[in-house]
Amino acid sequence: MRTKVLSLIVDNTSGVLSRVSGMFSRRGYNIDSLTVGVTQDPKYSRMTVVVTGDDKILSQIKNQLNKLEDVVSITELKDGESVCRELVLLKVKANNEQRQQIITLANVYRANIVDVSPDSLMVEMTGTISKIQAFINLLDGFEILELVRTGITGLTRGLYDNANN
Amino acid sequence: MRTKVLSLIVDNTSGVLSRVSGMFSRRGYNIDSLTVGVTQDPKYSRMTVVVTGDDKILSQIKNQLNKLEDVVSITELKDGESVCRELVLLKVKANNEQRQQIITLANVYRANIVDVSPDSLMVEMTGTISKIQAFINLLDGFEILELVRTGITGLTRGLYDNANN
Repeated sequence: MRTKVLSLIVDNTSGVLSRVSGMFSRRGYNIDSLTVGVTQDPKYSRMTVVVTGDDKILSQIKNQLNKLEDVVSITELKDGESVCRELVLLKVKANNEQRQQIITLANVYRANIVDVSPDSLMVEMTGTISKIQAFINLLDGFEILELVRTGITGLTRGLYDNANN
Repeated sequence: MRTKVLSLIVDNTSGVLSRVSGMFSRRGYNIDSLTVGVTQDPKYSRMTVVVTGDDKILSQIKNQLNKLEDVVSITELKDGESVCRELVLLKVKANNEQRQQIITLANVYRANIVDVSPDSLMVEMTGTISKIQAFINLLDGFEILELVRTGITGLTRGLYDNANN
């Protein structure tokens, strides 16, 4: 079982997200995360999909995606050849003493405090899956009230062209 | 026409994304952006959906979402009562002279340089939609080779409870 990050360029139409996600669910492939957003060209959107499976399943997924009319290109974002990042927002319960402890931990991870209330703190952090998981584990002694993650997004590094994929 | 940010807690099942996005496309509601990721409880995922429409359409969307079995809760993230953020990665063409100019601009916007190649730079930035748009506009004189955005994600501020929505 391997985890793969696929970066798709798709037509920016209202049904494309439903067609792509429907293809995954009909075949029982589980999506770990999915992000979709505009590109520099408003005609196209970029979807980043993280999937886990064996090589056979992953190659089936690529073939099926290639058959969809809305899909313009599929690039696999491989370790070392690409930069993958995720954004997480965490709301943590904090009294006066805990607040200082959390701010200290956030500074180590270069996370930002984006909101403070009398009994909670909100932390924003950007990083790889493993860095974000390490930070969440570190907060184990505190009560995480709410947590939201964008899911992975990424681009190939400068030297690696999409055409190589 | 207004833009609304809806934060949904949904069951973490393989078909939920396709059912939610299918509801939007069948009714012709256009999604500006969508993110889906795990929460602190693996049974549930959190989806953040940005939609534009008049009040009637937006209230229809909420009613339709409430009817879906997978949808546990719907919170509207209102300005001032919530923190909304987006992550963007930009690959910009840069020779030696342009590289320094881009790094200077990135520092002003607290953006990070995450990759450098002989003829390009990759910049990572987190912020509100308007901050990200301002930074992209600022790079107008340079050639943006690739751009990827996660779409908006957010949480209510400490004082505002989900139950108020």
